[in-house]
Amino acid sequence: MDRLPGFRDFYPEPLPHPDVWSADARQYIFNKWRSMAQRYGFREYDGPPLEPLELFTTKSGEEIVGQLYNFIDKGQREIALRPEMTPTLARMVAAHERNYKKPIKWFALPQLFRYERQQKGRLREHFQFNADIFGETDVAADAELVALLIDTLRSFGLTAKDFIIRLSSRNAWQDFFNQRCSDESKAYEFYQIIDKLEREQPAVSQDKLAKLGFSFDEITAFINAGQPTAELDLILKNLAARGLSDFVKVDYQVIRGLAYYTGVVFEAFDQQGEFRAIAGGGRYDNLVKLISGGKVNLPALGFGLGDVVLLELLKARGLLPKFDAALDAFCLIEDESLRGESLKLITDLRTAGLAIDYSLTPAKPDKQFKRAQEIKAARTIKIERNASGELTARIKDLRTREENVLPLTEAAELLAKGAR
Amino acid sequence: MDRLPGFRDFYPEPLPHPDVWSADARQYIFNKWRSMAQRYGFREYDGPPLEPLELFTTKSGEEIVGQLYNFIDKGQREIALRPEMTPTLARMVAAHERNYKKPIKWFALPQLFRYERQQKGRLREHFQFNADIFGETDVAADAELVALLIDTLRSFGLTAKDFIIRLSSRNAWQDFFNQRCSDESKAYEFYQIIDKLEREQPAVSQDKLAKLGFSFDEITAFINAGQPTAELDLILKNLAARGLSDFVKVDYQVIRGLAYYTGVVFEAFDQQGEFRAIAGGGRYDNLVKLISGGKVNLPALGFGLGDVVLLELLKARGLLPKFDAALDAFCLIEDESLRGESLKLITDLRTAGLAIDYSLTPAKPDKQFKRAQEIKAARTIKIERNASGELTARIKDLRTREENVLPLTEAAELLAKGAR
Repeated sequence: MDRLPGFRDFYPEPLPHPDVWSADARQYIFNKWRSMAQRYGFREYDGPPLEPLELFTTKSGEEIVGQLYNFIDKGQREIALRPEMTPTLARMVAAHERNYKKPIKWFALPQLFRYERQQKGRLREHFQFNADIFGETDVAADAELVALLIDTLRSFGLTAKDFIIRLSSRNAWQDFFNQRCSDESKAYEFYQIIDKLEREQPAVSQDKLAKLGFSFDEITAFINAGQPTAELDLILKNLAARGLSDFVKVDYQVIRGLAYYTGVVFEAFDQQGEFRAIAGGGRYDNLVKLISGGKVNLPALGFGLGDVVLLELLKARGLLPKFDAALDAFCLIEDESLRGESLKLITDLRTAGLAIDYSLTPAKPDKQFKRAQEIKAARTIKIERNASGELTARIKDLRTREENVLPLTEAAELLAKGAR
Repeated sequence: MDRLPGFRDFYPEPLPHPDVWSADARQYIFNKWRSMAQRYGFREYDGPPLEPLELFTTKSGEEIVGQLYNFIDKGQREIALRPEMTPTLARMVAAHERNYKKPIKWFALPQLFRYERQQKGRLREHFQFNADIFGETDVAADAELVALLIDTLRSFGLTAKDFIIRLSSRNAWQDFFNQRCSDESKAYEFYQIIDKLEREQPAVSQDKLAKLGFSFDEITAFINAGQPTAELDLILKNLAARGLSDFVKVDYQVIRGLAYYTGVVFEAFDQQGEFRAIAGGGRYDNLVKLISGGKVNLPALGFGLGDVVLLELLKARGLLPKFDAALDAFCLIEDESLRGESLKLITDLRTAGLAIDYSLTPAKPDKQFKRAQEIKAARTIKIERNASGELTARIKDLRTREENVLPLTEAAELLAKGAR
């Protein structure tokens, strides 16, 4: 029996097959995400992976349904697995924002689902680091959010040579549009064409733009000039003060396809252009009002950073550590009459916070030692009886080969000191 | 727009409403689960929350479908949200067990889903700590698993006064059954009656047992004698060696309703009998063979520990800590001409691993200080210009009110030392 296409099994390393994913790498990524969010003062939240379908169609229109895992449940409700976190977040914030001081800085690490037509290697689920700020119109919030994204990527060892945040502005494009077209109903189509500029043949874009009444050359000139708006300028200065200038540039080719962005938008890309966008986000000042049916109005901004492209990039740049059981010690039980005492020692060491394993059943000493090495234990520990009949612990560091013999009670202390 | 009935929203503390759950408490519980599993040498895995429906009906029969979130997807596949982790785990282990040395000790923290008829407060999802061992028939593995469960509960501050593991044995009951009945087809029904003994009126059980040809009195006597089998005796001795005798007793009233258990079974209960079972598990030596269609045969055992009853118990015993933003410092920006330098300092402190927040926009000093107190920052830090024009950092401990003024470069060092 196989798993569903587009879904992932996560195994402990070393991985048994190229077709499965690393649970250790996933946890490594989650830990970095969570840690940097907390350093930035963001608090964790989560919502249900299943939501009423209406939550997603309200935000994105009926056309989203084609990309969802959506169903009728046994209570005849139309429901869907969440394809993104923002609608759930907007719902949650709208429900209880009065109980939280502004700005609200929240993050989540949800698993998200999309039913896309099956393509080789194309996944139907992924995990995403979502960070959002509510209740602050000032671009200082945009800068704080971009800084969090930069520092998160830096925390994996990625440098300005590896990635760049391309900053853009819906407002700049809206001004450009308004100066040349008074029919606002064409704006969405216009954004869609700009969004595809990089991926489409110039002739195709040129043709589409001409039909809408825009000059391709004028647009190219606007993008090439890359003149920061006043708000982008403030963000650049804010990031410069933090020493993060090298990680960011203005690039009006980025516009974000989604309809709901309202101000500054941005995407993170690898500098070598090998991968899809690593992350993307921006301002969505009208969404809380929309989701709450007009009851709550809060400015908002956020980004999403997925696990799949990030993992590809870290692998390509050699930045993923090797993972193993990370055992502090493997307890050797060579004398079965000492198994009871060994179990007590193992329990005490684990209670002291150390990771300890041992052979559940009697095994030859060399087999036990081999096992300790295989699972990359930092040390072995073994109970011995000395000449005067007292029990002692022999601790051997498997890297330095250094050995120590000491009273049982001191074993936990010594191990804790040298814990890796 | 509301969330679906039976699902939970997780908010940062302090909680805005009694109807929502704490994201902080959830993460606290997850951290304890993960930490103890790793100390016991268990490795993390995960699988898809969606699986082919067949995976669950193969294990549990067609009657499980009534309790599932099951659907037809856009590719006409019959799929279901996982109601438990064991079938996914058996599938994953069967696929790649040859790449892992035995015993395989694995854990996961999955979210699980059941579509039960809506009852007040009854949830349709929960999280579960799952720990399993594969490839070991010896009861030393059963003891190791029970010890992990005990130590996990102990790590929350729960004591032998708070919970007890009730150990039982399918083998003991199978022997009892075989001595009195030669019709094996009645065994499942027999187990179901035993499983319900505690919850049903004695007269009802007595009647059902009589119809099946069993004496209620004989069964009561068997339970009351509580004579450990040889394998239960070994487990008790093993746990005694670890100093864990107080947390476990033989209790044949526990039998676990599910059909697939094959040997030792156990459940954890609170000592005051207020709550449903905290955790349950046992041996299921035939399941891997069943799931793999006979290709792989591996003895197995495991337990599941849910987050909902555990949380109720911790709350009732006053064992849940208070959670807050856990900020190492709040940076006061009282002189706006120093905002740039403050942003640099904040970035450096965060890079050094400290959790720092600040006012995104200009605000009065007393308002900033109030905010620092509200979000329970450990300290404030403020850049000042001294008489000779040099920048210094003034650090104030908000608990002791102690103040320090020192060069900017030393601020990170001092904070890191006193990091809470």
